[in-house]
Amino acid sequence: MGNIERFDKNERLSRIVVHNGTAYLSGLTADDKKTGTSDQTKEILEKADRLLASVGSDRSKLLVAHIWLRDVEDFDAMNKAWVTWLDGVEPPARATVGASFALPEIRVEIQLTAAI
Amino acid sequence: MGNIERFDKNERLSRIVVHNGTAYLSGLTADDKKTGTSDQTKEILEKADRLLASVGSDRSKLLVAHIWLRDVEDFDAMNKAWVTWLDGVEPPARATVGASFALPEIRVEIQLTAAI
Amino acid sequence: MGNIERFDKNERLSRIVVHNGTAYLSGLTADDKKTGTSDQTKEILEKADRLLASVGSDRSKLLVAHIWLRDVEDFDAMNKAWVTWLDGVEPPARATVGASFALPEIRVEIQLTAAI
Repeated sequence: MGNIERFDKNERLSRIVVHNGTAYLSGLTADDKKTGTSDQTKEILEKADRLLASVGSDRSKLLVAHIWLRDVEDFDAMNKAWVTWLDGVEPPARATVGASFALPEIRVEIQLTAAI
Repeated sequence: MGNIERFDKNERLSRIVVHNGTAYLSGLTADDKKTGTSDQTKEILEKADRLLASVGSDRSKLLVAHIWLRDVEDFDAMNKAWVTWLDGVEPPARATVGASFALPEIRVEIQLTAAI
Repeated sequence: MGNIERFDKNERLSRIVVHNGTAYLSGLTADDKKTGTSDQTKEILEKADRLLASVGSDRSKLLVAHIWLRDVEDFDAMNKAWVTWLDGVEPPARATVGASFALPEIRVEIQLTAAI
């Protein structure tokens, strides 16, 4: 039922997959891991903008977000960057929990699902 | 491809988002955080009932659930409240893992996806 | 909007749920919990093959995967089994984080969403 399109692939994952009007992004982390949670969140969301644009979507079409934090004490720092990025568009459903990451410098990971 | 409808919104998230016949709920936690895992689960699922009803869905139309527990030892307590709530309807796919939360009194968080 | 079909059910979850061209699997863990992360991943993915086949899907139609590891140090061991299983098909979007499980011998849990 409908094509599956995958973009920005390596052998283990596709950064974005489109099927049936829905775009599934991989969990994104920041490349610059020396920064704090707010700056890591900002970089992740800029990556998301580029991925969403590549399939004709954008931050106004988000459906649901999963957010993982290394330190749940950083909830406010993540939220500030998140709300700034949303810039008044209607936000997706969202769940945020603490988790551990493969690299200790990673402070936040975000996985988005969007309409196209 | 299809409208996106968002309900029960604040600046950072929508409690429920509908697109293409699917409803995505935010991760729900209990308001009364002084109770145990069983009662927190019960309160969360009552919230879910109200949100699902607001878009014409209900607990018999669940597709997938993500459940996070503060203490994985509370697996049975959560399950008991979950099965009582389902009350014999066909259950969704489900994944349950331990995680940490922004507030230490939170013992369980549940994120649901449902058909409408 | 469209039927919901659920398979391989017990009172608390369905191992696979199909709606609107999309199959949602439950979080899968290995039955043989005495093995390491690589072998647990391999067993999980063989289970996924059987579940996907039961609804007319297969590993080439994956949309998104959530992977949880008990020890994030096992990231490479999980990845090796994952890439071997994919066997060159285009991979789904994916997010991998550390989490805790109800049984301490569980080293990895995988939740898949696929097109049918």
